[in-house]
Amino acid sequence: MTDAEQAAAGPLVETGGRLLRVAAAQVGPVGRHESRASVVDRLVALLEQAATGGVELVVFPELTLTTFFPRWNVEDEDDLELDDFYETEMPGPETQRLFDVAAERGVGFCLGYAELTPDGHRYNTQILVERDGSIVGKYRKVHLPGHAEHEPWREFQHLERRYFEAGDDFPTWRAFGGVVGMAICNDRRWPETYRCLALGGAELILIGYNTPMHYAPDPSQDMLQSFHSHLVMQAGAYQNGCFVVGVAKGGNEEGVESLADSCIIAPTGRVIALTAHNGDELAVADIDLDLTRNYKETLFQFDRYRRPETYTAITTQRGPVPPPEETP
Amino acid sequence: MTDAEQAAAGPLVETGGRLLRVAAAQVGPVGRHESRASVVDRLVALLEQAATGGVELVVFPELTLTTFFPRWNVEDEDDLELDDFYETEMPGPETQRLFDVAAERGVGFCLGYAELTPDGHRYNTQILVERDGSIVGKYRKVHLPGHAEHEPWREFQHLERRYFEAGDDFPTWRAFGGVVGMAICNDRRWPETYRCLALGGAELILIGYNTPMHYAPDPSQDMLQSFHSHLVMQAGAYQNGCFVVGVAKGGNEEGVESLADSCIIAPTGRVIALTAHNGDELAVADIDLDLTRNYKETLFQFDRYRRPETYTAITTQRGPVPPPEETP
Repeated sequence: MTDAEQAAAGPLVETGGRLLRVAAAQVGPVGRHESRASVVDRLVALLEQAATGGVELVVFPELTLTTFFPRWNVEDEDDLELDDFYETEMPGPETQRLFDVAAERGVGFCLGYAELTPDGHRYNTQILVERDGSIVGKYRKVHLPGHAEHEPWREFQHLERRYFEAGDDFPTWRAFGGVVGMAICNDRRWPETYRCLALGGAELILIGYNTPMHYAPDPSQDMLQSFHSHLVMQAGAYQNGCFVVGVAKGGNEEGVESLADSCIIAPTGRVIALTAHNGDELAVADIDLDLTRNYKETLFQFDRYRRPETYTAITTQRGPVPPPEETP
Repeated sequence: MTDAEQAAAGPLVETGGRLLRVAAAQVGPVGRHESRASVVDRLVALLEQAATGGVELVVFPELTLTTFFPRWNVEDEDDLELDDFYETEMPGPETQRLFDVAAERGVGFCLGYAELTPDGHRYNTQILVERDGSIVGKYRKVHLPGHAEHEPWREFQHLERRYFEAGDDFPTWRAFGGVVGMAICNDRRWPETYRCLALGGAELILIGYNTPMHYAPDPSQDMLQSFHSHLVMQAGAYQNGCFVVGVAKGGNEEGVESLADSCIIAPTGRVIALTAHNGDELAVADIDLDLTRNYKETLFQFDRYRRPETYTAITTQRGPVPPPEETP
């Protein structure tokens, strides 16, 4: 829209609204040897509870189906087998029940899990399932945090860079009456994530996470985990005129205390629903997808105000290039 | 740094610190006909107060030297002359005093003003001046908000897109013992601003603003002005491991209530100094530029964790490209 067209259009006109009832389905700790059947029981209970409450979309966390296994150098653990943590099909025998409940009750869901492809690739994956039980789309985590080598000095490992390959795009889909995108855990700390999704038209961004309260490389960040998690998702929502649903696997999982604080955030940037504790729990909100227009068509009207020609460093550089040191 | 190198390096090691005392020098309303001499008197008083308190860098707001004139369609106002609001040289006869005080007292400053170049170009500009009174660098606002055409339906105009051309890059400089970048007002709402500066090595980002409390295109945002201003600068600081100084021209200027809430933000994302009212006032903090390392060398180690190859939409698209509508 040109400035002249916008001048003629005048202020934003409110519309009727595109309402959707959404739940952040926080999941408490999952044990090292907890079976898929046990986890799926818990997820089905949350799905049923949500459906009974009229929820249309339930968002589960990252790696919902298992414990957060990158905390171990799995090859060194006698009682663990790496492949046991991955799904080779979706739905599979144990997860089919989730799809059945979705179709029966008319409640969609978003689910994070470890994916092992037929040709041997491993991803940290999240899928979106519509209210008829059909898979809308799949996202593979782009930003893999942590490390690839065993680092014995850490209290616990964060070997995502060993156990997963990175995804390579930020797809969006038409679903649930709007445009939906996904991101996973560390992705939410990078503003590029939300921006790429919003440039794909996203109005609703679904984010699962596992966030240990202790960050070994710099423990001064530990006391700020909740603040940081909300800060980045609130800014991502506001700066892109999106709703964001952020969902934790929280609580003390195998001795590692993890951030809960699952939430639903409006395009205003404000948290409009929040979990109260750190176990299995729903936080529910009725969201109006047309509220995204209040930002996308005014202050953050991208096609009018963005300056991509000045952003080249974002895609041409990976690391920083500071000005040269002065030569005395 | 590779994962193996990082593994060998272990956790962050604290260093001695690069300390700098910084002030956000908030300025209250400037009248429609207030003289440069009067404004410079006020700025000199703030500079002197800061220098006496040991401050080494004083940050003034956007368009410090005049009223925020884009609120009028200046050509229609009998008592206003557009060129009167622009500086044709810097320092000029009225602003030389600021540079003299800087050199005498050893206090640097950052100053926003309207710039008219010898060949007739107009920019919304901010300069950085070192403690010896020398100009380190100049930034010209990249993101121009508001509109270019007179829009009579508004209570007041926001004609930045009429009275300024846009700048075209985000330079950084070595100064004040670190790497410094600048941004102006609406720039702070775009995550690309902080990212481009941080990719230029910025450790300290200086931002002046004039932010009316009333946003005509969507007045539902009015009550959120302070929250939004802090949200974007806090996220920008955290996500880029930078200190941010955000400085308002606040208070009721010619009938328009403007956001104050000037602040200094640490790389933790937290506000560490804040003005108490909406007039001429300093908010001061002692900052340690080495705190930027806690983020730049761990969680946000760009060269290890960023994925520029997945960010292409940010520079190849200006507006959103949603998925196609389903064809029934």
